[in-house]
Amino acid sequence: MGPQAGFDLASKITAATSAKTDQDHHSVIVFSFPADMPDRTAFLLGRTGINPADALAKQLITLADMNVDVAAIACNTAHAPPIFKQLKSAIENNGMRLQLLNLIEETVDYIRRIHPSIKRVGILGTRGTYQFRLYDIALERAGLNVILPDETVRNESVFRAVYDTGFGIKKYSNPVTEKAREHVEKAIVHLIEKKAEVVILGCTELPLAFALVPSKQQTLLIDPAVAMAQALIRFAETR
Amino acid sequence: MGPQAGFDLASKITAATSAKTDQDHHSVIVFSFPADMPDRTAFLLGRTGINPADALAKQLITLADMNVDVAAIACNTAHAPPIFKQLKSAIENNGMRLQLLNLIEETVDYIRRIHPSIKRVGILGTRGTYQFRLYDIALERAGLNVILPDETVRNESVFRAVYDTGFGIKKYSNPVTEKAREHVEKAIVHLIEKKAEVVILGCTELPLAFALVPSKQQTLLIDPAVAMAQALIRFAETR
Repeated sequence: MGPQAGFDLASKITAATSAKTDQDHHSVIVFSFPADMPDRTAFLLGRTGINPADALAKQLITLADMNVDVAAIACNTAHAPPIFKQLKSAIENNGMRLQLLNLIEETVDYIRRIHPSIKRVGILGTRGTYQFRLYDIALERAGLNVILPDETVRNESVFRAVYDTGFGIKKYSNPVTEKAREHVEKAIVHLIEKKAEVVILGCTELPLAFALVPSKQQTLLIDPAVAMAQALIRFAETR
Repeated sequence: MGPQAGFDLASKITAATSAKTDQDHHSVIVFSFPADMPDRTAFLLGRTGINPADALAKQLITLADMNVDVAAIACNTAHAPPIFKQLKSAIENNGMRLQLLNLIEETVDYIRRIHPSIKRVGILGTRGTYQFRLYDIALERAGLNVILPDETVRNESVFRAVYDTGFGIKKYSNPVTEKAREHVEKAIVHLIEKKAEVVILGCTELPLAFALVPSKQQTLLIDPAVAMAQALIRFAETR
């Protein structure tokens, strides 16, 4: 949910839509209010008591009032139960008609559809993603084995690629720095060495590091935003 | 104003903002309602009587009601006087507080600020852009010389790169096809041969063709979305 993540998801919706002209594309509204959106990881780790669910619920209510049918949150960490469950109740209590899809569930569903024979799934993400076993639970429920990076690789490669104030993707997203890309790549290689068959780029900043490098290795990488873009399109086209 | 163009502009706002954390970024709303948005070029060429200004005005009113301060339209062709002037009157008649920036004026202003010594400016764009001398008038007013591609290059390279149903950017925007990129490049080389010192990529689809190719040649290319992103940030940060 860094601001680029929402625009990246929207762009992937357009890319995944089969359209002959501009007019064939789906209607999309992107709300990007970063100043109103408390840090998700800080809340999950107990560094602040402000649950981002409240700000998210407010935005979803506005979208529902605009007759939006289906919505997604372009942030993995926001799907941790302490945030997402509270958000779901807020939606139910409000009685809104808007459907909120779940990034984690759509990603696991995508892996099973696109790579049905795969058994071992690696996960890259933020601290909150690991601490709340965000993907682990959904993957295990789907009968898949979870491969996690070792503690040192998390600290030295994954988290720094996202958060480092000198080269991290949160700060330098367009373009992503070469150093951030190298850190992400190192973590991916580590997971492959641990026998992961695919790797979920489980923080919306991570796929940005690979947008510019169409390589063989990309077939191993799962971008939750692509899974979500396809799910949103399916929802819009089958209702 | 192909749907990617709006997301591309939003992404360029984030990229051009100096921010240490997510929360430092500006609030952005993207409205992308392609099915409601009549083809701009078709209207300008008289193929339809439906002025896209009406649909645009409706969206701007909604944005103004949401307390949006400043807005931009990620479409060069929509800035042709028959559309943009009607839109401006609609805004004035409505009495809304929202400020609508002008993509053409911001681009010419950007060229003068970033390349103050440059005199000869090439233009790539859609049929409507050439027919209504969209950039020509603003550039000439700023004392710059306008270089246009020859008729055959327009038809065979520029328009096909955008509209060709087999490889054009309107249809294949993410990723852009290699063939579309080659067509754009051919037109740029042609303008450079005609002594253009910089080339305006005057249709929001064209910069997408060059997003993936950071090259020396890029310094010659003016992306109106970058000019507009900077203008929006200036507006937000100085008011």
